[in-house]
Amino acid sequence: MLAICYDGNVKLETDRARPRPSRSEVLIEVRKAGICSTDLEVAKGYMAFSGVMGHEFVGTVVAGSRLWKGKRVVAEINCVCGRCDLCRGGLSNHCRHRTVLGIDGRDGCFAEYLTVPVRNLHEVPEAVSDAEAVFVEPLASALQVVRQVKITASNEVIVLGDGRLGQLLVRVLKGRVQRTVMVGRHPAKLEAAEKQGIQTIHEKDFVPKAGAAFVVDATGRAEGFELAMRTVRPRGTLVLKSTFAAGGEMNLTPLVLNEVTVVGSRCGPFPDAIRAIASRSVDVSALISAEYPLRDGLVALREAARGDRLKVLLDVHR
Amino acid sequence: MLAICYDGNVKLETDRARPRPSRSEVLIEVRKAGICSTDLEVAKGYMAFSGVMGHEFVGTVVAGSRLWKGKRVVAEINCVCGRCDLCRGGLSNHCRHRTVLGIDGRDGCFAEYLTVPVRNLHEVPEAVSDAEAVFVEPLASALQVVRQVKITASNEVIVLGDGRLGQLLVRVLKGRVQRTVMVGRHPAKLEAAEKQGIQTIHEKDFVPKAGAAFVVDATGRAEGFELAMRTVRPRGTLVLKSTFAAGGEMNLTPLVLNEVTVVGSRCGPFPDAIRAIASRSVDVSALISAEYPLRDGLVALREAARGDRLKVLLDVHR
Repeated sequence: MLAICYDGNVKLETDRARPRPSRSEVLIEVRKAGICSTDLEVAKGYMAFSGVMGHEFVGTVVAGSRLWKGKRVVAEINCVCGRCDLCRGGLSNHCRHRTVLGIDGRDGCFAEYLTVPVRNLHEVPEAVSDAEAVFVEPLASALQVVRQVKITASNEVIVLGDGRLGQLLVRVLKGRVQRTVMVGRHPAKLEAAEKQGIQTIHEKDFVPKAGAAFVVDATGRAEGFELAMRTVRPRGTLVLKSTFAAGGEMNLTPLVLNEVTVVGSRCGPFPDAIRAIASRSVDVSALISAEYPLRDGLVALREAARGDRLKVLLDVHR
Repeated sequence: MLAICYDGNVKLETDRARPRPSRSEVLIEVRKAGICSTDLEVAKGYMAFSGVMGHEFVGTVVAGSRLWKGKRVVAEINCVCGRCDLCRGGLSNHCRHRTVLGIDGRDGCFAEYLTVPVRNLHEVPEAVSDAEAVFVEPLASALQVVRQVKITASNEVIVLGDGRLGQLLVRVLKGRVQRTVMVGRHPAKLEAAEKQGIQTIHEKDFVPKAGAAFVVDATGRAEGFELAMRTVRPRGTLVLKSTFAAGGEMNLTPLVLNEVTVVGSRCGPFPDAIRAIASRSVDVSALISAEYPLRDGLVALREAARGDRLKVLLDVHR
């Protein structure tokens, strides 16, 4: 089968063996996949990953479960043991023995087929198109922020970063808080948020004043955290969504002086994300910048890395 | 008057002018002062401080207030405006225009006299000796941890760092949680904690397992935070108490992957600390390693920087 793989270099494989599901897994024929900044970090060596890249997708179950066969599905990306202390403690997303689709120890979805555990599946309702379904995983990650942190309607939230995740975050926050401000460096991306009624500021015009009760760092850059530390007010909350292959010089003393709470935030609730898309409470379709056939995946990855692009999709059967 | 000052170098001044209290201040004759790791950081350029060093002390009010005159006092170290948004919002310790005794923009207590705002004063009860009273400020800082973070009796807490603050922290935690473990690098300091019934582990024998619900970083070293990230369990809480003049290379990605909450923690409640010392619920006297006359302050600072020393006191009138 066709697959976009990483093993120190990103490459298109044309005759990769089709995976076989284990007893607890299904085989999925991928319909569409999405490129995330984490994929771009994987391509720089993040998690020392090796295998088929990609974790955002929608597909059709073709084998492995009579119950699921023929269904259009999305799948949670953490594949867990169900037996370790964290799984038993209700933190299975943090399973000590987990593998993660296209990120850590398990082939992902930039391919014609992939296998995932049955327990990871969520059916996609008819009201959600293939292109929209690709956003379930990143939207769930954005929704995780409001699940972890008590943000109330009277709050103001500053989102640092105008990229894919930042865009979803401001859309999630818009109806929930009094004011959401996006700070970014890409006029086209800021404009996309403005069209949704979000206030935006270009980073070069933004003066951090240590006045915001809630700040989300979705910059994907180590320097973003320093900006976030200067933006959040004393005793405020800084939600950290950025992951990257390499760190930088950093002094965390401002966190102590200002008694800031930093909340690391990762994967979120798929059912909530499916509901938000199906009900159009979050409109994701405007975030699609381009779509490529899977065989042009390397071009698509380069496109997704451009500063003026939002979501780039891969269509497996085009 | 005699004073230990920093202006790029630490030095003993013998004829520094005695300060004059403003209308909202009192003049205090210092009795004893304590050397804290923050003082050692100030001596390395932390906060670009210039002036009389020191912030832990007990003294006698000699002028500026008829009500307070003759009283033995300790004083909160943040001198605040009372008018900014943070002061009005109940966060006066974070006042935007604050000065901090011996740390930021205001002369401290390694001198025969200092001035502090009347509102910062707390009377020291007879049951608390001068040497013990010097611990009110750092003990308040340790108590701040249990005020900021919900730690319950069933919890285990790992304290990284066996220094002055770490010692106070384990003593504060001992009666409050099921198990407190101190991790440190100095046998003599670990032994001091063991004498209080605290379990200790030498850092070279400590294998972080990402299993602790609560970890406090009181190492005072940038590397301590990396160890703390490997020690705290997913969705756990990491309390950060360390401040330092310079940072290091650091990748915060583990915070995101493990959805850790980091809580920066600084100054704490003086009344609670005075009560804890007066009632002997925290015994601080065993933490005194040495006492020097103020005129030998430079020797005392060197002594306090030694890895095997805990609190070094300065006696102003010896």
